[in-house]
Amino acid sequence: MLKTRLTERMGLRHPIISAPMAFAAGGRLAAAVSAAGGLGLIGGGYGDAGWITQEFRAAGNQPVGCGFITWSLAKQPALLDLALSNKPKAIILSFGDPEPFAKRIKDQGVTLICQVQTRRDAAHAMACGADIIVAQGAEAGGHGQSRGTLSLVPEVADLIAKEHPETILCATGGIGDGRGVAAAFMLGADGVMVGSRLWASKEANVSERMHEAALNSTGDDTIRSQTMDLARKLDWPRQYNARVLVNEFIRRWHGRESELIAVADEEAAKYRAAWVDGDPEKSNTFVGEVVGLIRTIEPASDIIERMMREAEELLQSKPKDIISKS
Amino acid sequence: MLKTRLTERMGLRHPIISAPMAFAAGGRLAAAVSAAGGLGLIGGGYGDAGWITQEFRAAGNQPVGCGFITWSLAKQPALLDLALSNKPKAIILSFGDPEPFAKRIKDQGVTLICQVQTRRDAAHAMACGADIIVAQGAEAGGHGQSRGTLSLVPEVADLIAKEHPETILCATGGIGDGRGVAAAFMLGADGVMVGSRLWASKEANVSERMHEAALNSTGDDTIRSQTMDLARKLDWPRQYNARVLVNEFIRRWHGRESELIAVADEEAAKYRAAWVDGDPEKSNTFVGEVVGLIRTIEPASDIIERMMREAEELLQSKPKDIISKS
Repeated sequence: MLKTRLTERMGLRHPIISAPMAFAAGGRLAAAVSAAGGLGLIGGGYGDAGWITQEFRAAGNQPVGCGFITWSLAKQPALLDLALSNKPKAIILSFGDPEPFAKRIKDQGVTLICQVQTRRDAAHAMACGADIIVAQGAEAGGHGQSRGTLSLVPEVADLIAKEHPETILCATGGIGDGRGVAAAFMLGADGVMVGSRLWASKEANVSERMHEAALNSTGDDTIRSQTMDLARKLDWPRQYNARVLVNEFIRRWHGRESELIAVADEEAAKYRAAWVDGDPEKSNTFVGEVVGLIRTIEPASDIIERMMREAEELLQSKPKDIISKS
Repeated sequence: MLKTRLTERMGLRHPIISAPMAFAAGGRLAAAVSAAGGLGLIGGGYGDAGWITQEFRAAGNQPVGCGFITWSLAKQPALLDLALSNKPKAIILSFGDPEPFAKRIKDQGVTLICQVQTRRDAAHAMACGADIIVAQGAEAGGHGQSRGTLSLVPEVADLIAKEHPETILCATGGIGDGRGVAAAFMLGADGVMVGSRLWASKEANVSERMHEAALNSTGDDTIRSQTMDLARKLDWPRQYNARVLVNEFIRRWHGRESELIAVADEEAAKYRAAWVDGDPEKSNTFVGEVVGLIRTIEPASDIIERMMREAEELLQSKPKDIISKS
């Protein structure tokens, strides 16, 4: 068993949090992750009151948290009250300024997790009172920025050690098996957040065809793009883009963003229809570079147990293999 | 001491190779790295016969290797013979197809190292007979592509295990201290290649003002761009760009590439003059995201000894800290 500041503070059996992936991470996945000993999060995403209520219900009695896309939450801040009324174990805010929401969350005694993509945003999140910082590298599937996990995590760890040593640090982006988990600990993380690998689980809300597309891809087959947000007419701040599989949609529009904006009304309807249809060519499969390490769709509990066992075994065997007395 | 397949195969004291950074990595740095127990590489870069001869001479009796930018070497292939005539310990080829050069290198009994940025190029390098694959993530300073180290390394490790288990794997990109080294081992690497951290050494050919600019930067202050190659009128294939510090030059031209191309003759002269002058605002400081972990310019031997000691200590202490029997 791996015991860290994260497992102790949050009362977890394993130092793992599931990413609050919009659409993919419903109550079923969040509950499965919490039941497996991690912290499961519902992906509140762009914010839909009915969906959030339904997914908390689907999580049943498992203690789960809820995530929001912060710039979107700012447009309908009452959704935070709705989430808080469901007694979440944590609220995670990603992609935007957590400041307007931090106090309400902490005043209810709920753990505040902030996902950040830069050292600068990590410093701001700590100033806002984040209990847990998730440092997300560009390897991640879905939205993010450009810094890599391997250098971002130790830089944020140094900042935490210097300014807010009580803050807990999780690494995310590019972590798909026990090797990534063990590496994250070496970089100074107290735990990991896992997105893509749990997206590729039985409990995730993902179309079969998108799962299939992922199983047939390597990490080379992903790209960061803003085309899907332009096609969906979503107001993502310009510093963010999203990693998806390269497909028909990307080949058509990536690099032709101004043309896409000009026909966005028409494309938005087509895109949304394809998305509802689970079409991996005409909408997008949101998955990270670790897609190249994923070979099966399994129950979340199997994935978590294996990742943790692999990490523990590596932590035990690798030092013995390579440290020499002479 | 850390003993891996890399140290055994290459007869090194430490599992570390210095990156063959064009301009920055001359014979002095390469010799210092080899003297410290690693494998030092001269950065043959775009290829200048006089410079290469001079730098092998500067390395004295230390066994060092030499690197080339492969697409540039293809334009003046005789430079490979020049390098081979200096009895290099290894030749490293980066950024282009190693196939036309692999046989000449291996026929001389010289170790062939191929640096790659994708799974696809790793497979091709192995097919060409690479003895060592260096998997480079986008965190790296200077030229590269977009995949992150944390997911690229295990994916290439799996490919090696399956297809060419005798091939050695090194990780590079984002490794600036012992945490990155220890993480690389967990990901499946046999060693590391270090660029930026050794760029920030006493022995590197780097202007004082660029070193100063780096010491004042965090990892957030770097960017991948093609502007410097357009301004220098270099024929880099389109899939590559380079990570540098954001500065006056980048703020002026990044995102305005077509305008830059239109005035490239004039800008090339200005850029080259600024480069010769060591100007960190009007040319570019080529350094990776680990710049945020670098606080001093030190002798290469001190940097290497500390990185290796930190990695060994972490490998010893971290498992004890987090593995719990219960």
